[in-house]
Amino acid sequence: MNPIFAAQANAIRALSMDAVEAANSGHPGMPMGMADVATVLFNDYLKFDPADPKWPDRDRFVLSAGHGSMLIYALLHLTGYARPTIDDIRNFRQLGSPCAGHPENFELPGVECTTGPLGQGLAMAVGMAIAERHLNAVFGDDLVDHRTWVIAGDGCLMEGINHEAIGLAGHLNLGRLIVLWDDNRITIDGAVSLSSNEDVPARYAATGWHVVECDGHDPVSIAAAFDAAIADPRPSLVRCRTVIGKGAPNKQGTSKTHGSPLGKDEVAAARAELGWSAAPFEVPADVSAAWLAAGRRGAEPHAAWKDRLAASSDRAEFQRRIDGVLPAGADAADHIGALLANPQKVATRKASELALEPLTAAVPEMIGGSADLTGSNNTKTAVTGPLDRDHYAGRYVNYGIREFGMGAAMNGMALHGGVIPYGGTFLVFSDYARPAIRLSAIQQARVLYVMTHDSIGLGEDGPTHQPIEHLMALRVIPNLEVWRPCDAVETAEAWALGLARTDGPSLFALTRQNLPQLRTEGGMLSAKGAYRLKAAGAARRVVLIATGSEVEIAVGVAERLEAEGIGADVVSMPCWSRFDAQDAAYRADVLPQGVLRVSIEAGTTIGWERYTGLDGLRFGIDRFGASAPAEALYDYFGLTAEKITPKVLAKLKELQA
Amino acid sequence: MNPIFAAQANAIRALSMDAVEAANSGHPGMPMGMADVATVLFNDYLKFDPADPKWPDRDRFVLSAGHGSMLIYALLHLTGYARPTIDDIRNFRQLGSPCAGHPENFELPGVECTTGPLGQGLAMAVGMAIAERHLNAVFGDDLVDHRTWVIAGDGCLMEGINHEAIGLAGHLNLGRLIVLWDDNRITIDGAVSLSSNEDVPARYAATGWHVVECDGHDPVSIAAAFDAAIADPRPSLVRCRTVIGKGAPNKQGTSKTHGSPLGKDEVAAARAELGWSAAPFEVPADVSAAWLAAGRRGAEPHAAWKDRLAASSDRAEFQRRIDGVLPAGADAADHIGALLANPQKVATRKASELALEPLTAAVPEMIGGSADLTGSNNTKTAVTGPLDRDHYAGRYVNYGIREFGMGAAMNGMALHGGVIPYGGTFLVFSDYARPAIRLSAIQQARVLYVMTHDSIGLGEDGPTHQPIEHLMALRVIPNLEVWRPCDAVETAEAWALGLARTDGPSLFALTRQNLPQLRTEGGMLSAKGAYRLKAAGAARRVVLIATGSEVEIAVGVAERLEAEGIGADVVSMPCWSRFDAQDAAYRADVLPQGVLRVSIEAGTTIGWERYTGLDGLRFGIDRFGASAPAEALYDYFGLTAEKITPKVLAKLKELQA
Repeated sequence: MNPIFAAQANAIRALSMDAVEAANSGHPGMPMGMADVATVLFNDYLKFDPADPKWPDRDRFVLSAGHGSMLIYALLHLTGYARPTIDDIRNFRQLGSPCAGHPENFELPGVECTTGPLGQGLAMAVGMAIAERHLNAVFGDDLVDHRTWVIAGDGCLMEGINHEAIGLAGHLNLGRLIVLWDDNRITIDGAVSLSSNEDVPARYAATGWHVVECDGHDPVSIAAAFDAAIADPRPSLVRCRTVIGKGAPNKQGTSKTHGSPLGKDEVAAARAELGWSAAPFEVPADVSAAWLAAGRRGAEPHAAWKDRLAASSDRAEFQRRIDGVLPAGADAADHIGALLANPQKVATRKASELALEPLTAAVPEMIGGSADLTGSNNTKTAVTGPLDRDHYAGRYVNYGIREFGMGAAMNGMALHGGVIPYGGTFLVFSDYARPAIRLSAIQQARVLYVMTHDSIGLGEDGPTHQPIEHLMALRVIPNLEVWRPCDAVETAEAWALGLARTDGPSLFALTRQNLPQLRTEGGMLSAKGAYRLKAAGAARRVVLIATGSEVEIAVGVAERLEAEGIGADVVSMPCWSRFDAQDAAYRADVLPQGVLRVSIEAGTTIGWERYTGLDGLRFGIDRFGASAPAEALYDYFGLTAEKITPKVLAKLKELQA
Repeated sequence: MNPIFAAQANAIRALSMDAVEAANSGHPGMPMGMADVATVLFNDYLKFDPADPKWPDRDRFVLSAGHGSMLIYALLHLTGYARPTIDDIRNFRQLGSPCAGHPENFELPGVECTTGPLGQGLAMAVGMAIAERHLNAVFGDDLVDHRTWVIAGDGCLMEGINHEAIGLAGHLNLGRLIVLWDDNRITIDGAVSLSSNEDVPARYAATGWHVVECDGHDPVSIAAAFDAAIADPRPSLVRCRTVIGKGAPNKQGTSKTHGSPLGKDEVAAARAELGWSAAPFEVPADVSAAWLAAGRRGAEPHAAWKDRLAASSDRAEFQRRIDGVLPAGADAADHIGALLANPQKVATRKASELALEPLTAAVPEMIGGSADLTGSNNTKTAVTGPLDRDHYAGRYVNYGIREFGMGAAMNGMALHGGVIPYGGTFLVFSDYARPAIRLSAIQQARVLYVMTHDSIGLGEDGPTHQPIEHLMALRVIPNLEVWRPCDAVETAEAWALGLARTDGPSLFALTRQNLPQLRTEGGMLSAKGAYRLKAAGAARRVVLIATGSEVEIAVGVAERLEAEGIGADVVSMPCWSRFDAQDAAYRADVLPQGVLRVSIEAGTTIGWERYTGLDGLRFGIDRFGASAPAEALYDYFGLTAEKITPKVLAKLKELQA
């Protein structure tokens, strides 16, 4: 073995050991085991330029086995990225260090996505590879021509998401996706054989992948496998046979190296084993130089690419998409104007389609899809033709019955840049995609979730399909904007606002059943999260707060109260988090003191005390649903103006007494 | 084809068409496509006795493709179960009918589990097959010797959960599990080939399954495949080549038959095609007789089994376990007594292990496990040896990195009966298992979730691993008891109460970090969900409400307030839903009016207004976490007695002003 190669790999091992030891916390086993594979990749294969981590045509590198975060921190540092510095690495896992326990895309350029929740890195890489092929089809090889590389461990492969991700990648024949499987035969609890007897290569082959093996500690074998992977037109799984914790003489090959510091003695023994005599956190000059040279490989192709971009007639449009700047028409203003002129009584899922038609026409970077519920989610539009292995320029992905895989792929697409993904399923199956939704939020990714059939209003499919807790369970995810529009105008506003949001995901909860158009004026009122849809006629004693399909009910209650001489505002609250972000004066105006506040939402009442106070009333459903037609269910659960109004009147009397 | 066989199958088709037509809602395609396969199964293979749907040694039949619910309703009715009656079927999908849109285990004996959320039926069947092999190993062939049969569609197979489920089944070599794959090549959006190019049999073979094919409309071919599946020692996938909507001449073989009524004309055409002239909802006498005869097949083996049970020396113990009655020692009374005598400062995950040791020793039906985090979840005890393919009598399942598969398998185990499953992962990965947790709750299954590392207190692993929204997102699931105990005593109480609960799941959120033992008296105080842990010394002006690790902080705040002459109660609230179920007087005593109520929980504050009111204070974390040691994080997020106390004092001043 080339001695400098061995030393380069050992630099990764040493930094990993040192950082974990200093933090007294972390995972040395994976970086030590995959150091040789990573060294081959970053030395000779990966297209990247540390001087510009955002170069759009760089290869994407995803450390799906995110617990091995020191691997990527070491690589970024050694190849010459501005961060992490050696001090950042010294502060591994400490407050304020960008070298967090798991890699975070918002902490370090060069970390393409946040990983740690197992299986999702690989699944996001599938989305990156989709985005790459799509942009390649649109803009050509001159501007877009890169690969997506993944390091994944047995945990990533055993998770269910892996089945969805590789099924999608195989189906789309994403040949520029290469997964390096750290086949170390070890999990946290011990040998992989404790819990699995799977023939992993056979499974990958079953869904159209190319599989090749290598000795993960032999650079010649590794390079040969990479060459084979690149040559094959299919997505590739490279099985890297490795020893976890390689170099730690007494612990390597065991789960003891996985998630704990090696300890002082074993670190010393490893240093001896590896012939590594530099002080902790120090890298010998020749090794450092070799790594920096590897980091400079990208400068020339990057410069050539810049020249091609400068000369391209597509330059402005390419740059606009990469910058994430929306084109004219993304505010749906014309569409909203048309709705106001000609009100529509439609389900909000249909209203979503009505908004999507002009939006997808105006915003060519929008790529839609559904987890096999296209006709129910209303996610397909006239301009979004299929994106498949023969038509990467298409704009509609048939994700299959893969809700989680869809969410993760959309995260990868958004993080890749140049595209804005949206995708649909039933709201109740947000549970299936939930780990990806959380990662959309953590990663501040512009992903748009279309979640239809958003309440008992879906009717006969019954409790398993009726969301009860889902709206609230989604609202508590930080940085996720959850929308539940009440009509076609609010739906269009939600789309425009979600599209315009550049620092996080939006989720639209939409009805199956038809709703009247309640909005008669424009003004993008949804932007504040909640607003007075109807002001009290008589002296105001009640404020009715509702979302989505229940706003119509609130209007009915208000009419009945007004008929009794009781003034009642109706507040539509399509987005909690936006309302919470308004100033105190606005919030106090919309939800004033000294009146009875009543919430109406066909879901759990837990949480609504936030707006009703403890003295208010909360109408909702605090049990699982039932199978029946929608109208029968609304009546059964007491969510009608007829049934709510007397309870409001009774409460008013009680408060007077 | 035997004409009465064809008519039996057509009876299923006719009832399915009629019921969907009457409801104007439902899924005729699957029951019509799988009618022949189901007829062979129920006529000649399935061991069941309609006179006693709960016969413990019956075969389990799981309709994983739950949207085809009319298939099982027709089968139960035709074979002579007391319900559904023909009137129940006439009321398919109507309020109050047990024939719900998707099959619900709590509506109809004979429906072994609730299905509809795709992939989970098959995954629950894996758990049933585990329970069967375990009880067989414990009680022998005389008492336990049955199979688990599953009908699954492409949706079930494409979901990620399928990978986890079949991986576990293959690893455990559950040879008595037989999956009948409705290979109709159709999904909702169209051809399966729109979204998948997978070689399904190759994938199953890759994880140790036996695969056999049949013509799903030829009873001889079907029976031959069943015989091969039974003969093979591995779990079997029977690929049934079928035509969706078989019998509807103009729509069969297309997605049009999947989820909508066929329509009057097509129903008439189908009746002609099938030669079915009986009136809607009527079954000719000879066909009915043939079906009832099939239903009577089980009477004799059932009687013989009863004789064997009566003669068995294990009778009482077997019956106790099947009845779900706990043995002596399940209340952990001795353990709690020992804790009171000798307080333990341990993490609640360790406290859980301390409770599990005596509980698993006393309750032999408890079967533990972890999704590859055994050493972190502390779920393994001295008496729970591995349950693997060579030791089905074992009591600890290495579930692998399969959180969702673990949850679904536990549901199947609990529904099978005779065992009480518990399993562990990190609380943040409750998201991965969430769809199964929801089904535990819907199905009223006694499943115990051990969720450790329950807050930023896990420290360095950072935002992806730190639950922020999870406690609240779990609390809003109906019928799930979410526990967050504050010390070793509460942890033991939670275990005892969760074990004793027979109508739903319990989830324990447990710390990584050590906590002092705050409880000094017994009394099973956790049973009420919340209680006064410490009464105010000075005149009470504050009630501090906290859970888990934050109760210690609340005690610290109370001490500081008392030092200022301000009386402060500390309320420990380990289980919201239990507290909400107490009478008003108890709740008012614990959370009185006229005082400042303050919540402290290291998670989202949304929802805590329920107990603090809008005038109270809520201390928590409304953003994602960070990577740092636990103490640094608690300080950073302001969750220390030092930082909270001045804010409480300031609020008291404000209220006085």
